[in-house]
Formats: sequence, structure tokens, C-alpha cells
Amino acid sequence: MIRVIAFDGDDTLWHNESIFSVTQERFRSLMRPYQSDGLDERLFAIETRNLRLFGYGVKGFILSMIETAIEVSNGCIPGKEIQHIIDAGKAMLDHPVEPLEGVRETIETLRSHYRLMVITKGDLFDQESKLARSGLADLFWRVEIVSEKDEQTYRRILHDAEINADEFMMVGNSIRSDILPVVALGARAVHVPYRLTWAHERADLNGAPRERVSTLENLAELPTLLEGMA
Amino acid sequence: MIRVIAFDGDDTLWHNESIFSVTQERFRSLMRPYQSDGLDERLFAIETRNLRLFGYGVKGFILSMIETAIEVSNGCIPGKEIQHIIDAGKAMLDHPVEPLEGVRETIETLRSHYRLMVITKGDLFDQESKLARSGLADLFWRVEIVSEKDEQTYRRILHDAEINADEFMMVGNSIRSDILPVVALGARAVHVPYRLTWAHERADLNGAPRERVSTLENLAELPTLLEGMA
Repeated sequence: MIRVIAFDGDDTLWHNESIFSVTQERFRSLMRPYQSDGLDERLFAIETRNLRLFGYGVKGFILSMIETAIEVSNGCIPGKEIQHIIDAGKAMLDHPVEPLEGVRETIETLRSHYRLMVITKGDLFDQESKLARSGLADLFWRVEIVSEKDEQTYRRILHDAEINADEFMMVGNSIRSDILPVVALGARAVHVPYRLTWAHERADLNGAPRERVSTLENLAELPTLLEGMA
Repeated sequence: MIRVIAFDGDDTLWHNESIFSVTQERFRSLMRPYQSDGLDERLFAIETRNLRLFGYGVKGFILSMIETAIEVSNGCIPGKEIQHIIDAGKAMLDHPVEPLEGVRETIETLRSHYRLMVITKGDLFDQESKLARSGLADLFWRVEIVSEKDEQTYRRILHDAEINADEFMMVGNSIRSDILPVVALGARAVHVPYRLTWAHERADLNGAPRERVSTLENLAELPTLLEGMA
């Protein structure tokens, strides 16, 4: 019997990757004057290399865009243009946080029957700010902001909150972060894909125990799924 | 009777501000070719303005140095030189984490008599990495990484860990973050000044209830202070 349901934040409760995508489009147009073939691939390579030092989040993304701009311009890009990149990054941090369709209603329906958590990965300050701006913060029993979502992290969270794996369900858009480590611990997971997935989070469900993974098109289908399981 | 002692991280358990200070010196020398009167003040003003969006931590500091460089050079500084600033910032993130003198021995002495915590402010990824690299992580009962250390944060931590204010002592170098909000809740605080204090953290002890605040020159004096109180 499921007793606790945890939700991912970015692209599960609120739009996120779409904001990165718009910013990356602005970045592409800022870089147009420079030889910028394969710009996306170079940015992704620099982001991946920087993850070890920066972790996830917008500030690291801004720094990676700046490094990419310096690299593709052979160090010639002037400060003025780098300021445009910083401004585009700051706009992301100030962007309204828009819950996905049906999220608020679903959370409000479920919270009288289950203990609801948020387990979200990324920059602490930024994630706290997004949760607050989403208007959803008060609906949750617990919030965990973590730097990486792997088996060890989920094991620690379940232990701290005194939750058995067989009572726990994780709901999220990332197979890599929300599904695979959770089912590996013997818990259930519900995959709700978002229309965009950051290359770093791509993975497939092959090998996951199908009886513990469900896939929904929309979070609003979750109450029906839970009724069917009960 | 004190039952739980919490320690600040940066400049209480390990050196931090000294690394910022060395980086700022590198930044000053990189900016020497530009008109850079009042460079420190301009950097501090930009850091303070950016806190609302970036929060605390090295990544925000790097971005603020870049913005300052762009501003003092009237947008002319070339990307190549901005890369030097980024490299100086990355060196901070990779810098060895060096516990202050006497810290390890003191923590090892106290942990058999008290529950020990770390309550540290800043970037989640960076703080986790520093705690791990300090070699001290395993000595603590709990670790809390928070985005701001105010009364509300301490109240939440005490509540979650089921600690009464009169059983709790906070030890740290920042009057603003480690002392004032803690004594306001009725708990005890021990101020161990570091030789450098970031301008943002400066405050004075006037108005704090003196019977609940102690000042030590060195963390190693803490066991003796606690013996005297018992």
C-alpha cells in the first residue's frame, strides 16, 4: 500500500526545460556573428565537464554559456556581449514559475489520502525560490532539495522520514533521476515525460522492473492510477 | 543542559574567507590594466545586488566578478581575460578544504558527550563537497545546508530534529548568522571570530543577551567552556 508520494520539481510540477530551451535559443542568436557550428554540442560538452565543479542549476549554466562563447570566439568576444549572456541567465532566475497543467488540482486531491513530498535536484537557493514562487509549497508534507538523485540519496531520504520502500512512490519526468534509482530500491515509480528532456537526463526504461513502473501522459491521471492499484 | 552543539562550516570548521580573499587579490591584479579605483567597493555592491538572484556561494561570486570586470572596463574586456576570472573561481571550488587548527581534535572530544551538527549556509553542491573534502563529515550526527541562517531557519531545524532551544548551542564566526538569530530563540551561542569577515556578515553583539553568548579565540577552548557551564 502506497503511503507516501514524492514528486520531482523541474518539468514535473513546473515548467523548467522550456525556459532553458528559450535561453539557449537567445544564446544561439547572440553567437551568430561568430563561427558557431555545433554550438549546442560545444555547450553541452562544457556543461558536462563543469558538472563536477558546479553541480546542477542556472548559475552553472550561465558560466558554461560564457565559457562556450569565449571558446567559439577564440577569446575575442567583448565583455559587453558576455553581459547579454548573463542577463539572459538572470532572466531565467526571475522567470515566473508556472505549474504544469492539472498539477495543483491533482496535488490537492491526493494530499488528503497520502503524505506528499517534493524531491528535487539542483541549486538549493534556486529550488527553494521556485517552490515558493510556484505557490505549491504549502501543499507538501516534506521538501528535500538534493545535489544528486541516486540510490544512495533516496535511501537516505526514506530512512530519515521513516518510510518503507514498499510504501513509497516517486513521480517524475526523468528516467535517470526519478525512476531507475527508485525502483532499484524496491519502491514504485511513475514516469510522466515532459516534452523536452535535457540530454544529460536521457535514459531508457529497458531493464527496469515493469511491474513497479507506470507511465502517464499527464500528472492529472495519477489519482486514477492509484485507485486502480488500491 | 546543552545536549546538541551545532557548528557553522565556512571559517568555523574550515578556512573559507581566506580563499575568497586570495581570489579577490588575483581579480585586482587582472583588473589593473583598467581604471579600477574602488574596485572592491564596486564588486561588493554588485555581489550584494546579485544576492537576491544568486544566493551565497562561489558560482554567484564568479558571476559578480565578471559583471564587475565588464562594468569597470566599460564593456571592453575581452573574453580571454574573463576566462582568467572563471579559472580563478574554479580554483576556489577545487581548493583543498583545510580544517582550522584544533577543529578535528575538538570535535572528536565532544562527540562522545554531545550530539554534533553542522549548520552551514550556501551553495548545496559546494557545501556538500567541502564537508566531504574536509574529512570531518563522519563525525557529525546531522548536517543541514541552508540558503539563509535566520530565526525561521533555526526554528525549523530545531523542530525537525526535536531539540529544545535550551538544550542547543550554536558555534560560529558570524555574529549575523550564527549568534543573533540563535540567541533570539532562547538558545546559547559561541562566537569564534575568524581573522577575516566578509562585509555582508559584519554585525555587532550589542543588544544580544550576554548571558547566552560566549566568545572564544579558538574552537579548541570549547570543551573547557562547556565544563565550566556544567
